[in-house]
Amino acid sequence: MVVKAYGAYAADKPLEAIDIERRAVGANDVQIAIAYCGVCHSDLHQVRSEWDGTLYPCVPGHEIVGHVTAVGDGVTKFQVGDVVGVGCMVDSCQHCASCDEGLEQYCENGFVGTYNGPTPDAPGHTLGGYSQSIVVKDDFVLKISHSEDQLAAVAPLLCAGITTYSPLRHWNVGPGKKVGIVGIGGLGHMGVKLAHAMGAHVVAFTTSESKRQEALDLGADEVVVSRNAEEMAAHAGSFDFILNTVAASHDLDQFTILLKRDGTLTLVGIPEHPHPSPNVAALIFKRRSIAGSLIGGIAETQEMLDFCAEKGIVADIEMIRIQDIETAYDRMQKSDVKYRFVIDSATLAT
Amino acid sequence: MVVKAYGAYAADKPLEAIDIERRAVGANDVQIAIAYCGVCHSDLHQVRSEWDGTLYPCVPGHEIVGHVTAVGDGVTKFQVGDVVGVGCMVDSCQHCASCDEGLEQYCENGFVGTYNGPTPDAPGHTLGGYSQSIVVKDDFVLKISHSEDQLAAVAPLLCAGITTYSPLRHWNVGPGKKVGIVGIGGLGHMGVKLAHAMGAHVVAFTTSESKRQEALDLGADEVVVSRNAEEMAAHAGSFDFILNTVAASHDLDQFTILLKRDGTLTLVGIPEHPHPSPNVAALIFKRRSIAGSLIGGIAETQEMLDFCAEKGIVADIEMIRIQDIETAYDRMQKSDVKYRFVIDSATLAT
Repeated sequence: MVVKAYGAYAADKPLEAIDIERRAVGANDVQIAIAYCGVCHSDLHQVRSEWDGTLYPCVPGHEIVGHVTAVGDGVTKFQVGDVVGVGCMVDSCQHCASCDEGLEQYCENGFVGTYNGPTPDAPGHTLGGYSQSIVVKDDFVLKISHSEDQLAAVAPLLCAGITTYSPLRHWNVGPGKKVGIVGIGGLGHMGVKLAHAMGAHVVAFTTSESKRQEALDLGADEVVVSRNAEEMAAHAGSFDFILNTVAASHDLDQFTILLKRDGTLTLVGIPEHPHPSPNVAALIFKRRSIAGSLIGGIAETQEMLDFCAEKGIVADIEMIRIQDIETAYDRMQKSDVKYRFVIDSATLAT
Repeated sequence: MVVKAYGAYAADKPLEAIDIERRAVGANDVQIAIAYCGVCHSDLHQVRSEWDGTLYPCVPGHEIVGHVTAVGDGVTKFQVGDVVGVGCMVDSCQHCASCDEGLEQYCENGFVGTYNGPTPDAPGHTLGGYSQSIVVKDDFVLKISHSEDQLAAVAPLLCAGITTYSPLRHWNVGPGKKVGIVGIGGLGHMGVKLAHAMGAHVVAFTTSESKRQEALDLGADEVVVSRNAEEMAAHAGSFDFILNTVAASHDLDQFTILLKRDGTLTLVGIPEHPHPSPNVAALIFKRRSIAGSLIGGIAETQEMLDFCAEKGIVADIEMIRIQDIETAYDRMQKSDVKYRFVIDSATLAT
C-alpha cells in the first residue's frame, strides 16, 4: 500500500511530501490509520543526521496515535476501530534477558526503532509516523483508553510520557518523596504532571523566571529558578530523586548536591557536548548516584497510558499542519513551544 | 595522660616524635594501648595539607588496633584486656536520620574524624593512631575476634576493609554476581578478598601485567589488564557491579560499558583532577549508574570484622617502624607496597 508521508532525502534537505510503501498486513500485524503524531527533538536530530547513521529517505515520528484499520489472522488483542498508539519501538528480539523482563528498550540485540531501524520492508529501514498509516507487529501496539477528543494530546505520551514515567517508577517516586524535575519542556512538563499524579512533592527547576507560574500550573508544588544560587542552596541535601530532562551541556553538580543520602540524579538526554565532569566527592559523601534511563518497555508504556487515562493526564500541545514542520523545528530549537508540537495527520492529504 | 606520638607541625615539615595529651577516661570512654596502626593514603593527604583545612600539629592514623587499658563507669561492652579497633570515626551527632540508621559516616551534622576532627580535648582537634594510646567513646570502638598473631594485618580492615566491604554489601554482591575490582592496591586488594569471600565471580582490573598472578592469588577468578583493549572488550556489558578504587584521574567509560543493564560503577576515591566527563549515552542505553561510597557505619564495620575473622581474612601488609614513616609515604606514592604499610606502635617508645 502506498501512502502519503513527509520526509527528507538528505541531511541538508528540508522535509517534503513523499509517497512511501507500507507492507501488507501479516498474521501478527496491526494496520493503523494515523490521526496524530507528536514532534520529538529526536526527529530533528535524526532527519538532519546530527546523530550518526541516518538512512534516507528519512520519515521521522514516534509519538503515534490512530485507529486500527486491519489486523492479521493471528491478532487477538486488537480489532478494527480500536484507538491505539505506537511509540519509539516497533520490534525487538523478544528472547533476550531484557526482553524477557519486558524491558524491550534495553534489548540486548538492539530494538528496532520506529524510524531508521533495520527492517526487511522497503526501503530497508523503518519509516515513522509523519505518514498516513503504519503497519506494526501487535506486541508493539498500545491500547489507548482516553476519550476521542484527547487523542492529539495523548500522542506525546508515547515518547515524552514514557521517558519520564519509567524513571519515576523505577526510582520509586510516590507519596512522601521529594522529587525534582529539571527543565520544563516536552519531557519535563510531562515529568511534573506524572510525578504530581504519583503523589510526590514536586519541585520544578527552570532557568527562566517566566516559567514559574506555568510550572505551578502543571502541578509543581514548588518552582526553583536554577540560576538563583540562594534558591538552590535552600534545597541542599533534600531530594530523594531528581529527573534531569535537559540535554544541553550543563553543570550537574548543582543538582547532585540537592540530593539526600542515597539519592539519584537520572539523565534522559544525551548532550551534544559533554557536561562538565561531575564532582566525585559530592557522590561519595552521600552515597549519591548519577544514572541514565531510556524510554520504557511496552508493558510499562501500557501501564503509563492507563495511568494517564485514569488520572486525566495528557500533554500540553500545539497542533500543526505537516506543511509547517520546518517552522515547528525552528521554534522547537528555541524552546518556543508549550510544550509539544503535534501533527494533525489529516493535513498529509491536503 | 601524656603519650608519645608521631606528627607534623606544618604541611612542609616531616613527621617527627611529639608528645601529645590524651583525655582522662570519661564515663563512656575506652582507653586503648595501640599495638598497630595502618598507613592510609588519607594520612599523607591530610598531614601535607593536600586537602583543605589541616590543623597542626597533625597526628594521622585511622586504622587502629590495640588492647583496652581502662574503661569508664558507663561502659558495659568492653573490659580491660579486650582486643579492639578504631577506624575513621570517633564520634557523630548520633541523632540524625543517618546516625539513626547506623550510617554514621553520612552523619547529617558531620562525623568526627579520628584525626583533624573537632573536639573539646586539647589541642582542639583530634589526634590519630600514630601514637601509643587513644581514648575513644565506646560506641565508636570495635571488637576484634581475630587471633593475636593476626592483629597487625587486621589494622587495615578499619579503613581499607570497610571502605570496600560497605559498597560490596550495599550493591548486593554475592553468589551469581559478576563483580569487578579496579586497582589492586591497599583498597583494591581488600575488595578482591572480600568479594571473593562473599561468593561473587571476581574480576580484578589492573594497569600492570605484572600484577596478574598476584591478583589471582588474592582470590580473583579472572584478571584483566585494563590497557589491553581486546581483553576489556571481551567483558562488555557483563558486570553486575564494579568497585573502582583508583583515585587518579582516568577514563570511567572503559568500565561503565562493561556493566550490564542496571549495573553500577561505584567510586571510593576522590581524584585530585577531575576524571574525563562520563559518557551519558553509556548510562542511558543500559540504565547504568555511577555512584560514590564512603567508608561504612559502625555496625557494618563490626559486621565486616566478624565476617573477616570467620573467613580468616586479613590485609597483606608490610610492617614498618614509625621512624620510617616518611620512606613509607614515598613508597606508597609510587604504589611500591603490597598492599598496606602497618606501623608497629611499639617502635614509638624506642
